Amino acid sequence: MSEYSAPIRDMQFVLKELAGLADIGQLPGCEEASEDLVDAVLEEAGKFATGVLSPLNRIGDQQGARWNDGEVTTAEGWKAAYTQFSESGWTSLAGDPEYGGQGLPKIVNVAVMEMWKSANMAFSLCPMLTTGAIEALVLRGTDAQKATYLPRMISGEWTGTMNLTEPQAGSDLAAVRTKAEPQADGSYRIFGQKIFITYGEHDMTDNIVHLVLARLPDAPEGVKGISLFVVPKFMVNDDGSLGERNDVHCVSIEHKLGIHASPTCVLAFGDKGGAVGYLVGEANRGLEYMFIMMNEARFAVGMEGVALSERAYQQAVGYARDRVQGTEAGVRGGPKVPIIRHADVRRLLMSMRSQTEAMRAVAYVVAAATDVAHNHADEGERARAQAFVDLMIPIVKGWSTENSVDIASMGVQVHGGMGFIEETGAAQHLRDARITTIYEGTTAIQANDFIGRKIAREKGMTIKAVVEQMRAVEVELAQHENEEFRAIRAALAAGIVAVEEAVAYILETYGQDIKAASVGSVPMLKLFGIVAGGWQMARAALASRRQIEAGSTDAFYRNKIHTARFYADHVLSQAPGLAYAVIHGASGAWALEDDAF
Amino acid sequence: MSEYSAPIRDMQFVLKELAGLADIGQLPGCEEASEDLVDAVLEEAGKFATGVLSPLNRIGDQQGARWNDGEVTTAEGWKAAYTQFSESGWTSLAGDPEYGGQGLPKIVNVAVMEMWKSANMAFSLCPMLTTGAIEALVLRGTDAQKATYLPRMISGEWTGTMNLTEPQAGSDLAAVRTKAEPQADGSYRIFGQKIFITYGEHDMTDNIVHLVLARLPDAPEGVKGISLFVVPKFMVNDDGSLGERNDVHCVSIEHKLGIHASPTCVLAFGDKGGAVGYLVGEANRGLEYMFIMMNEARFAVGMEGVALSERAYQQAVGYARDRVQGTEAGVRGGPKVPIIRHADVRRLLMSMRSQTEAMRAVAYVVAAATDVAHNHADEGERARAQAFVDLMIPIVKGWSTENSVDIASMGVQVHGGMGFIEETGAAQHLRDARITTIYEGTTAIQANDFIGRKIAREKGMTIKAVVEQMRAVEVELAQHENEEFRAIRAALAAGIVAVEEAVAYILETYGQDIKAASVGSVPMLKLFGIVAGGWQMARAALASRRQIEAGSTDAFYRNKIHTARFYADHVLSQAPGLAYAVIHGASGAWALEDDAF
Repeated sequence: MSEYSAPIRDMQFVLKELAGLADIGQLPGCEEASEDLVDAVLEEAGKFATGVLSPLNRIGDQQGARWNDGEVTTAEGWKAAYTQFSESGWTSLAGDPEYGGQGLPKIVNVAVMEMWKSANMAFSLCPMLTTGAIEALVLRGTDAQKATYLPRMISGEWTGTMNLTEPQAGSDLAAVRTKAEPQADGSYRIFGQKIFITYGEHDMTDNIVHLVLARLPDAPEGVKGISLFVVPKFMVNDDGSLGERNDVHCVSIEHKLGIHASPTCVLAFGDKGGAVGYLVGEANRGLEYMFIMMNEARFAVGMEGVALSERAYQQAVGYARDRVQGTEAGVRGGPKVPIIRHADVRRLLMSMRSQTEAMRAVAYVVAAATDVAHNHADEGERARAQAFVDLMIPIVKGWSTENSVDIASMGVQVHGGMGFIEETGAAQHLRDARITTIYEGTTAIQANDFIGRKIAREKGMTIKAVVEQMRAVEVELAQHENEEFRAIRAALAAGIVAVEEAVAYILETYGQDIKAASVGSVPMLKLFGIVAGGWQMARAALASRRQIEAGSTDAFYRNKIHTARFYADHVLSQAPGLAYAVIHGASGAWALEDDAF
Repeated sequence: MSEYSAPIRDMQFVLKELAGLADIGQLPGCEEASEDLVDAVLEEAGKFATGVLSPLNRIGDQQGARWNDGEVTTAEGWKAAYTQFSESGWTSLAGDPEYGGQGLPKIVNVAVMEMWKSANMAFSLCPMLTTGAIEALVLRGTDAQKATYLPRMISGEWTGTMNLTEPQAGSDLAAVRTKAEPQADGSYRIFGQKIFITYGEHDMTDNIVHLVLARLPDAPEGVKGISLFVVPKFMVNDDGSLGERNDVHCVSIEHKLGIHASPTCVLAFGDKGGAVGYLVGEANRGLEYMFIMMNEARFAVGMEGVALSERAYQQAVGYARDRVQGTEAGVRGGPKVPIIRHADVRRLLMSMRSQTEAMRAVAYVVAAATDVAHNHADEGERARAQAFVDLMIPIVKGWSTENSVDIASMGVQVHGGMGFIEETGAAQHLRDARITTIYEGTTAIQANDFIGRKIAREKGMTIKAVVEQMRAVEVELAQHENEEFRAIRAALAAGIVAVEEAVAYILETYGQDIKAASVGSVPMLKLFGIVAGGWQMARAALASRRQIEAGSTDAFYRNKIHTARFYADHVLSQAPGLAYAVIHGASGAWALEDDAF
């Protein structure tokens, strides 16, 4: 397995020339995000990712997290790496300065997050879940809760978890049954079992802060009867020292296809009299709080799609350069060549590369919009940016992760027989990627959200505005009379028409026949992702063209245009077929009786 | 993990109503293949697959094959199952009656083969490789070699292997370096190391017969200097008893992503003075013999694509029926429903089902053509059938296996979080499927063969004849004025045009710019696979319609039409996008310098 090397040049390009880093740096509260600072942060994070996290990726996969009598031991070297990670300040990068965080905007944090996830996805899940727990406390914690937990979670001294689902619930959190019994002192006793708890138990820190969904005794049925509690692994004394062990225990960890190093825990609350918990925010509003945080978590998983695609691409390029096999097509008796000279290897690599760059561009543009939505002085600008973010979150999550499974699989294919051998490392990326379309809401859940809340509910207002922006880019492409720009324009134009037709179908159908519309939800999500990627790649080509016309001889810009053209011909070109499936595909899907399967 | 249940009804339908079983039964040498016999064979094979092989699939994955000091132990229960398998006559089903085989035609054997591969792919590889070795000996063995090895290989008493590649060679067999030194007694001593040898060592039989590619001392360089040798694990005495251990040893087995139970061996020949081998056929023609057998082997791996798709589908349907979660779309406050009622689960299941049925239909039709090519009394008929088989082999291999990776991945997705947990069993199908696009020639190698030897070399003659047959089906569809047939026809018509345009591009480009044509090779293979599948599904819909019009009330026929319609809307509809990539995609793929990746 080759070590990861952060694609800093492409990250800088996307941040500065597509996502508007300079504009973000003008927003109130984002002034620190100067180009110089960003360059320095990327440089340092890249070194940490390559030097510390990447080398632990394979050993984490091989050894996995190990459970023994309630204790979970992480793989060799992981605890030390975590300590170094938090002591270097990486856990606090985006944290609230009031509690010791560095408060950098999302547009900076996104690139750093991508690096952790590329270098070592299983590792990155620990700080990712901690961020979720931090946000819950920032959002609705009492001052005392904030003072007790936030500084040590932001510093990385303690980690956090999110305890949502249970065996009978799955994605359907209305079915949560864990109970919270009020105590005389204002605390609660928690009883129940939670599953799929990422880093629910581990040996990397002294304490773990669990955020737990549970029902009060008098709670209404369903989604409006669920409250949120904070439940520390060790009680925290008034002086901040650790007290007694709380009654929450890891009864087992899962044996999974991938992310072996990340312990996926079954946690038992209250087997020995009740786990002590404290209500966060108001009673019965727990699920609502989860929904507020959901954008953040889904975006982060979308970044896993980008990150694993980048890692799989790097691994495949390395192999394709080194592996000498066969002669070049059309050259009889010629010398043996590295397989990067073979047409289909080239096609696979370009497919991996172009889609990864497209996904990165879309994700960073959405990250920038998040900063605008949070920080812009103008309320209208904030609202417009938020609507764009809300529209795009299911795309960043669903489209990037679905792609990452295919891209990691392409990476295996580039390796031929060696790709199937675990020592090579390519297979791990596929195994790791496979969870990303499932957790934090499956692709179907993202797609339902996309066509329902994000398109139908507002009668397509935001998506139509985005299509207008795409049209403007198409017009701009038309000003360049060369073959590459013509090719990019042709495919983008067809993609835009495909989106328009599919959106019209969804708007027409959703209210009348939601089951028919829903058959098209995932194809619609993929369609819009592909076209949004084409839109950003077209913007990238235009930006590159401007640099070349301004005299730049940096090969980066030439290659970006080539890559955008490949994306147009091979990826964007699939858009009309997806629109066809959206528009025509419902009745075949529902025609069989359930028992005919 | 649910047990496999053979889809006998669909197999019978395809055999009888699409592949022309009755016609095959009229061919000289195929008279035994009556409908009654075929029904009985499918019934018995189905029982064996469900009762014996399927229950060992998971344990094989968990325990894997284990290496210890040159010995390989298969998983618990595997040796007994293999004995039962061979004693029940399954190894001899398609074998030459002269050596104890039952001589059933390919059209029967293909359905049985599908069952073994669905039930337990890792197990099925042992008889599959043995069949390859048997064919080599039937094809070019001396009478003495045939008498020594064939009866006991056909009976299953001994197994066989194919020793082709070496570390430096990969797919490029011209690079083979294993040496064969002639001895005074007419035998040879073999020296070298072979990798990726499936069942190269195991404990299920007393002897293993290795077929080995090696170079004679005076052999010319490259592909025309490779000879084929038979090298038994234990020498065979004149009376047929086993003699001394030969100098071929398993030095290690690979740690793989999937098919854990199938030992993938590194074999060392000649570490202790030379492995005794015997020349098969003429010197320096070994690779040519391999090519003759290649159709058979590639077809068999294509069947793995069909078989794993079927298994993944069954597993997903079982889960989708049992798993109750959420309420039906549009029904607020309604009861919880099994997830098979959710639109995207339905779409996934129909996608898995329709593609599996399409692949099965294509494969069985090709199997029937193989019987015609081998057995028809008329030379012209034989030649036409062989040309069709040659055209379709890379499609059966490449398209079915590429699909199987996607379909197994869809199966994981249907399971949600449980799909990522190994105990569920869905992930194993994905891991097992991942090898099928690689071994016996990667998809790129199939696609090169397809556009080069199968299309360009004969100026598209055979593929154009097949397109004519597709057009005839399209005309027939037009005679049915109902919505489903209109939908099927529309998508098939667009698919045919896409194939025609892409074929025209390949014919025009291949001779002038093979590197450009080759970028389109895999998209071309997928395009033709999709349209060929649509062609067969359209034939299936027409055959079903005829049955319904003749008064059948069997729901099977109604469901087949529904499934064909789904395939048209969701799968066939992707054909034009692939043709676009074939026709426009070359220059973007070659634009970057090698070092720009």
